[in-house]
Amino acid sequence: VKVSEIGEFKLVDLISKIVNSTRTTDVPWQNLLTGIGDDCAAWKGDTSIQLATVDALVEGIHFNFDFCTWEDLGWKALAINLSDIAAMGGVPRYALVSLGIPGDTDIKNVTAFYRGFTRCAKQFATAVVGGDTDAVPRVSATVTVLGSMGEQVNLLARGNARPGDLIAVTGCPGTAAAGFRMLTRGINMGKTASKQLSQAFLRPLPRIAEGQILVKTGVRSGIDISDGLLSDLRHICKASHTGAVINAENLPINNSVARYFKEDAVSLALSGGEDYELLFTAPPEIMLKAERQLACPVTVIGTITREKGKIFVSYNGKRLEPQVEGWEHFKSK
Amino acid sequence: VKVSEIGEFKLVDLISKIVNSTRTTDVPWQNLLTGIGDDCAAWKGDTSIQLATVDALVEGIHFNFDFCTWEDLGWKALAINLSDIAAMGGVPRYALVSLGIPGDTDIKNVTAFYRGFTRCAKQFATAVVGGDTDAVPRVSATVTVLGSMGEQVNLLARGNARPGDLIAVTGCPGTAAAGFRMLTRGINMGKTASKQLSQAFLRPLPRIAEGQILVKTGVRSGIDISDGLLSDLRHICKASHTGAVINAENLPINNSVARYFKEDAVSLALSGGEDYELLFTAPPEIMLKAERQLACPVTVIGTITREKGKIFVSYNGKRLEPQVEGWEHFKSK
Repeated sequence: VKVSEIGEFKLVDLISKIVNSTRTTDVPWQNLLTGIGDDCAAWKGDTSIQLATVDALVEGIHFNFDFCTWEDLGWKALAINLSDIAAMGGVPRYALVSLGIPGDTDIKNVTAFYRGFTRCAKQFATAVVGGDTDAVPRVSATVTVLGSMGEQVNLLARGNARPGDLIAVTGCPGTAAAGFRMLTRGINMGKTASKQLSQAFLRPLPRIAEGQILVKTGVRSGIDISDGLLSDLRHICKASHTGAVINAENLPINNSVARYFKEDAVSLALSGGEDYELLFTAPPEIMLKAERQLACPVTVIGTITREKGKIFVSYNGKRLEPQVEGWEHFKSK
Repeated sequence: VKVSEIGEFKLVDLISKIVNSTRTTDVPWQNLLTGIGDDCAAWKGDTSIQLATVDALVEGIHFNFDFCTWEDLGWKALAINLSDIAAMGGVPRYALVSLGIPGDTDIKNVTAFYRGFTRCAKQFATAVVGGDTDAVPRVSATVTVLGSMGEQVNLLARGNARPGDLIAVTGCPGTAAAGFRMLTRGINMGKTASKQLSQAFLRPLPRIAEGQILVKTGVRSGIDISDGLLSDLRHICKASHTGAVINAENLPINNSVARYFKEDAVSLALSGGEDYELLFTAPPEIMLKAERQLACPVTVIGTITREKGKIFVSYNGKRLEPQVEGWEHFKSK
């Protein structure tokens, strides 16, 4: 059986099973809180919970240099990993990068990559402490970020959603995917709109402060919507043994996306991916507190239900069960 | 200027300069002990020194499936990172792996990869806690290992060698390179020799226990010889502002390597690379203690000198200044 036949998510399940079958009584395993299958790995450190995440960007798969500069790449390679720390409610601390580049790469491009990477690191108070370089035919950047929960003893975990929880999202999902479509299809729009959309795709801002506020407010269930809102909601429902209903009319749509992508806007918001916004669930009273505490736009878009694995979208008075849900490696759709 | 024109080591210097120019007063930077340029990054954790390292294996660059099985690859991808923890004298704790594979990869190969990876993890008491999978044309495994110095407050650092220190090496350098040559050139030898040499290349054993013993014994300067003995000795000399003399007659050569590679044995030992043995330096009295404490073969092979950057090899009564020194990405030799 080929990997492309089972798809990324089943592959991760398989890997998770193999790895968990090899657990031992050694200290690191005993201290582990969350292994493969959440945004970050998490374990009990000496005095606080420690977090670690790794994510790669590969030329031709996740980006290409037709529209992405080396500086964009550096920024994004770090930002998507910081977003995983944000999705646990953690504080990022240290970053390592394994950079694969062809031998004929100009060193000014390498410099631009690290300019983008270190700017992002600076903005989110992360120290760049190590790495590795390799000569490879296609550019790839594999980044590890280590973080901590500080004084917090709870995580934004995927498995903590409960029936009756409200579902909310930060920012405007679909904006990054609209930016990608604009860049790849050469869609013309006003300067401001164009900048906003390309920034959303090329220079995502991880919701670091927001994730920490959510944890402090008592929110226990969250994820970043890098795979697409529905796809990541499915991760939450699966880990929490619940279902969900999304009210598509409530989805917050960026003005420029609404204007230039009209009917596609809702589908971009549901399945676009690459937004690095936070999707989280909480009982109504905690949700109210979270909405008050967060400085960024936050919108309640649905409810967690008891129907295991069932995700419905209510739209134009209809209740739909969506099929195509978002980004997945390997599987053709 | 192209990366291939400056080579890997100058590229790392360049990256190190860019990154260090962006240091801030943020907590992670303040706690940092060792950034880019040693075997691991190291920083002050809440109660002990924390370590992190990342290293990638790429198909066609570091291995190919003509002689390397998927299980070998899994083992080695983790082992080479554990070796970086060993080279600081640390205790490995957690591993994350970013695995890039083509979509048409059979899942039994993925299973074999994780079998090798988790076996190595188990043997060295490391928990496999996270990762990432990507669809890419060529197989690559980028591994991060996190570790700790436990109760130790000193590291095996590259910059701590002092003139007058003796230089020693564990095991028999050149064995892995001989194994690689045997596998790629199809050299016939006895079953035992063949197994020993291929294991040295495909299933290296990181010197985890040995690194910890060295630190406890008071050794402060060390590195693993993954790039080749001379090349890694140069890293030590550069960071310590010293020179070195190696007595080639003293180099410990594996019996099978001596038998099947005769005159090449010394050059394999000096420049072969991929051995994952430890090279370390210490004043004579500490070296004596270290030799007594270590259970593995350990051989004194030279002395650290005052002549900055000068590395000499004494061989057959001659004092040579070697040119080709070992593995380096990007640069053609």
